[in-house]
Amino acid sequence: MRLAELSERSGVATATIKYYLREGLLPPGRRVTATQSEYGEEHLRRLRFVRALIQVGKVPVATAREVLAAVEDDSLNQHMRLGAATFALPHGPDPDEDDPATGTARREVDGLMAELGWSHGGEKYGPSPAYRMLVTAVAALTRLGYPSSARHLAPYARLAAQQAVHDLDLVETYDTPLEQAAAAVTLTVLYEPVLLSLRRLAEAEESRRRFGVE
Amino acid sequence: MRLAELSERSGVATATIKYYLREGLLPPGRRVTATQSEYGEEHLRRLRFVRALIQVGKVPVATAREVLAAVEDDSLNQHMRLGAATFALPHGPDPDEDDPATGTARREVDGLMAELGWSHGGEKYGPSPAYRMLVTAVAALTRLGYPSSARHLAPYARLAAQQAVHDLDLVETYDTPLEQAAAAVTLTVLYEPVLLSLRRLAEAEESRRRFGVE
Repeated sequence: MRLAELSERSGVATATIKYYLREGLLPPGRRVTATQSEYGEEHLRRLRFVRALIQVGKVPVATAREVLAAVEDDSLNQHMRLGAATFALPHGPDPDEDDPATGTARREVDGLMAELGWSHGGEKYGPSPAYRMLVTAVAALTRLGYPSSARHLAPYARLAAQQAVHDLDLVETYDTPLEQAAAAVTLTVLYEPVLLSLRRLAEAEESRRRFGVE
Repeated sequence: MRLAELSERSGVATATIKYYLREGLLPPGRRVTATQSEYGEEHLRRLRFVRALIQVGKVPVATAREVLAAVEDDSLNQHMRLGAATFALPHGPDPDEDDPATGTARREVDGLMAELGWSHGGEKYGPSPAYRMLVTAVAALTRLGYPSSARHLAPYARLAAQQAVHDLDLVETYDTPLEQAAAAVTLTVLYEPVLLSLRRLAEAEESRRRFGVE
C-alpha cells in the first residue's frame, strides 16, 4: 500500500508517519519510484503499536524505540515483551523516601504481595513501576490516617486479579506478539477511566441501596 | 481548643484555617479574649471534611461551600448527602457530542446500565458525572476500534459493584454523616491510584502465569 492508504488504515496523519520513519520507529518502505514507497501489513501493525505507545500511552519517542526493539526480539518470551511495553507507561510520582508514611506503606504493600504470592517485578530490574506507584498511593492514605493496611487492601487486590484475567483474555484475542503488545498498552491505559467511572457509579448504587429512601 | 490545637489535630495550617473561616467554610469559634477563640469537636470534623474536598478532591472553594450546606442539611437522607459530596469531585472531560463514537458509546453504556439495573443519576439533576465520564472513556476505546461493547464492559462493572461494597463498608466505619462524607470523598479519590496500580501488578502476574517461561 502507499503512504495515503497506510495513513487511512492506521488513523495516523501522513506527516506523523513521515516523522516516525525519520525517527526509525518504522522501517523504510520498498522504494517504487523516486518519490513513492510501498508499505506492507507489517508496517501497519508496527504503526498501530507505535501509535498506542506514543499517542495513547504518552511514552516519549526515545523510549518507544527501545520498547519496539524488545517487543520485536524473538529471543524474549511474550511475558517479557508485554512487560517491556507496559513498564514504559507513565506511572506517576515515585515514593517520597524522606516521609515516614512511605516506610509504613511499603511494609503493608510487601505484606500484601507476600500474602498473594505476587512478585515486586524482576529481580533483575528492581521493583516494577506499578509497585512503586502502589507504595506512593498507599502512603498518601496512611498520611491522612485512612485505612491502608494489607488487610484493607487485600479484597481490592483479589478483585484486581479478576480484572487482570479479563484484560489478558482481551489481549489474547489478538494474533501477533506486536498486536498483543499494542492491545496491552491501549487496554491498560484506556480502560483506567472506564474502571474508575464504573466504580463511582457502583458506589452511588451501593449508597442508594444502603442509605436511600425513595 | 485553640487555633493551634485545631491546626495540629486536623493537619491544616493555621493560615489556611483562617482563610476557611473568612470564606465561611468554618463557623466562627467562641470568642474568649479579643484575639483568641475557642473551637470544638464539630469544628474539627467540619475542617477535616473541608480538607478532604479541597485538598484531596481539588474541589473549588465555592463548590465546597454548597457541598457543605447539603451534607449538613438534616432534611436530606445520607444517600443524598454522600451524593452531594462525591458528585462535586472533578470527573474529566464531558463526552464530545459531535463525535459519532459518543453515540455508539452511549448506546453501549445505556445497555449495560439497563442490564445491571443501575441508574444514570437523579431524574432531577440529569446524568451523574460518573455516567458522563464513562461515556467519554468508552468513546475513546470505540474510536480506536478496541473492545467497548456492553458485553465487554459487564464483567468489569460486576467487579466494580464488589469494590463499591468494600468502599461503603469503610465509609460506614465512621460515625457522623459529616465524617462519612469526608471518608467517601477521600476514599473515592485516594483509592483510585491504589486500584490502578493493583490492576497493573495483577496484569503482570497474569501475564507471567500465561506467557512466562521461568
